[in-house]
Amino acid sequence: MRVAILLEHKSKKIVTASSSTSIDEAMDLLISNKIGCLPVVDDSGKLIGIISDKDIFKRIHQTKGNYHSLKVEDVMVTDLIVGLPDDDIAYIAGVMDKNWIRHVPIVDGERVVGMVSLRDIIREQAKNVEIENRYLDLYLGMRRDKSGDI
Amino acid sequence: MRVAILLEHKSKKIVTASSSTSIDEAMDLLISNKIGCLPVVDDSGKLIGIISDKDIFKRIHQTKGNYHSLKVEDVMVTDLIVGLPDDDIAYIAGVMDKNWIRHVPIVDGERVVGMVSLRDIIREQAKNVEIENRYLDLYLGMRRDKSGDI
Repeated sequence: MRVAILLEHKSKKIVTASSSTSIDEAMDLLISNKIGCLPVVDDSGKLIGIISDKDIFKRIHQTKGNYHSLKVEDVMVTDLIVGLPDDDIAYIAGVMDKNWIRHVPIVDGERVVGMVSLRDIIREQAKNVEIENRYLDLYLGMRRDKSGDI
Repeated sequence: MRVAILLEHKSKKIVTASSSTSIDEAMDLLISNKIGCLPVVDDSGKLIGIISDKDIFKRIHQTKGNYHSLKVEDVMVTDLIVGLPDDDIAYIAGVMDKNWIRHVPIVDGERVVGMVSLRDIIREQAKNVEIENRYLDLYLGMRRDKSGDI
């Protein structure tokens, strides 16, 4: 499946940060939009970096919690690996695996047209699978009852 | 593929926390072991919860950075969805998708025998794929050179 199709299944809204966005605000954006990574763009909309919850998490720990004065530019990654709308999602999955990353910005020239996460790829694959959750307490209860029906 | 096979491909070491582990120490464990989630076990080794970097990230933001007095028990998730070694990884992927989670503890009775992450599942799938990274600067340079050879 092409990345372009996957992006059609996602929200069209691309939440971005600028290099001067504060880390507190970036955290707000990540949490309130339930995303793990923000593309960072300049005034002209050109992609200049990405910043993930994990990047921030590590920096918070490094600074022992003194992160409030930091800006996105202090934490963002600028050596970017990107995908194209025409890529196959198997290629993007391979890039994520090889580089130990969880998000790949999809670009058209200098502009970001979407973000693909590990979750997006799993979502496409798991789409039509019927799943019943196995809760730990229920699982242990069933074991005690000697019911093998899990 | 069965979860048991996937776990054989991973490090056998299971890094755990206890409910009284400090959040600072949990962050240390997550970062130094390059993992996103810790199973929380009691003194007898029984699985009682999990705590992820994302759970901590959110709590740090909620507390505006005043997290140093928190312990794992204050942040961990206890309503657990678990997998079994005999499960197929497609089932685990479906569970992750359906429940918007990134980590599933794999149990044998009350004990955790491994953790499966979104990344682990992608890794199994991407294992034999040859990948060449597309770096943004190179991609843009190539476009400027009108080389279509990406």
